[in-house]
Amino acid sequence: MSQAGDAPLVMRTAREADLQCLVAMLADDPLGATREHYGSPLPAGYRNAFDAIAVDPNNELIVAEQAGEVIGMLQLTYLPSLTYQGRWRAMVEGVRVARAARSGGVGRRLVEHALHRARERGCHMVQLTTDKARPEALAFYRALGFTASHEGLKRSLA
Amino acid sequence: MSQAGDAPLVMRTAREADLQCLVAMLADDPLGATREHYGSPLPAGYRNAFDAIAVDPNNELIVAEQAGEVIGMLQLTYLPSLTYQGRWRAMVEGVRVARAARSGGVGRRLVEHALHRARERGCHMVQLTTDKARPEALAFYRALGFTASHEGLKRSLA
Repeated sequence: MSQAGDAPLVMRTAREADLQCLVAMLADDPLGATREHYGSPLPAGYRNAFDAIAVDPNNELIVAEQAGEVIGMLQLTYLPSLTYQGRWRAMVEGVRVARAARSGGVGRRLVEHALHRARERGCHMVQLTTDKARPEALAFYRALGFTASHEGLKRSLA
Repeated sequence: MSQAGDAPLVMRTAREADLQCLVAMLADDPLGATREHYGSPLPAGYRNAFDAIAVDPNNELIVAEQAGEVIGMLQLTYLPSLTYQGRWRAMVEGVRVARAARSGGVGRRLVEHALHRARERGCHMVQLTTDKARPEALAFYRALGFTASHEGLKRSLA
């Protein structure tokens, strides 16, 4: 942890000015390194995605800020669903913590904030998938009350 | 398969008039039986969820209709995402086929339609989770090109 470790950790909605920093976090990751492109200027896709999330009332990009620096992020999607008698659920994606701030509880605080927001929105469940290539993530989510009851499947359309 | 098996299978967006039939399908399922409530009138939650899906440009409830009868359903959600250089992905939820029409290829046709719609919307990936209590579903999705690369985690907020 840096010396900023004692400053309060603030959870807030991401702003456009955070984008460079968010992409840097996505790219600084064993899996992200192979699929992101962090450079200046950023590829236009990142700004387009940021805008699509910002205008969608069912999507939120949340950042963790400490001492003026963005050190964590996640995306929260609210999902209307017919199942469970039509109750809303929430999905968490893209949880990342800046390298220098890892193992300091920032990820836990981010996910706890997501659970809080999901409750505020009346969701009965929060769901997410985690790559089997990140075994440490599974223990992290189990400690936060998640159950690995499902298989997570992906199919590329490339 | 019923005698309707030779009639063309049509994929279309669900209409409000389908709702009773959709909830009947959700309830007629080993897992759904414990959490759905099929009765007349339907609990208000189902209509609220239907309306929330219908007005959301990033959600679609798709039904498979044959000889005037709705015999299958799935929900498709389009997800803006910063990852993969800001490319959209799609998620499939709530795939169900009416009991009398099972093992006749309706599920496969529904998922293939979802893949087609996701491509039309420019998504680079389709994702879903399937309950580990439905082992036959895993083989079904693998045959459709999905890879079980992720763990699917859920956390109830009840």
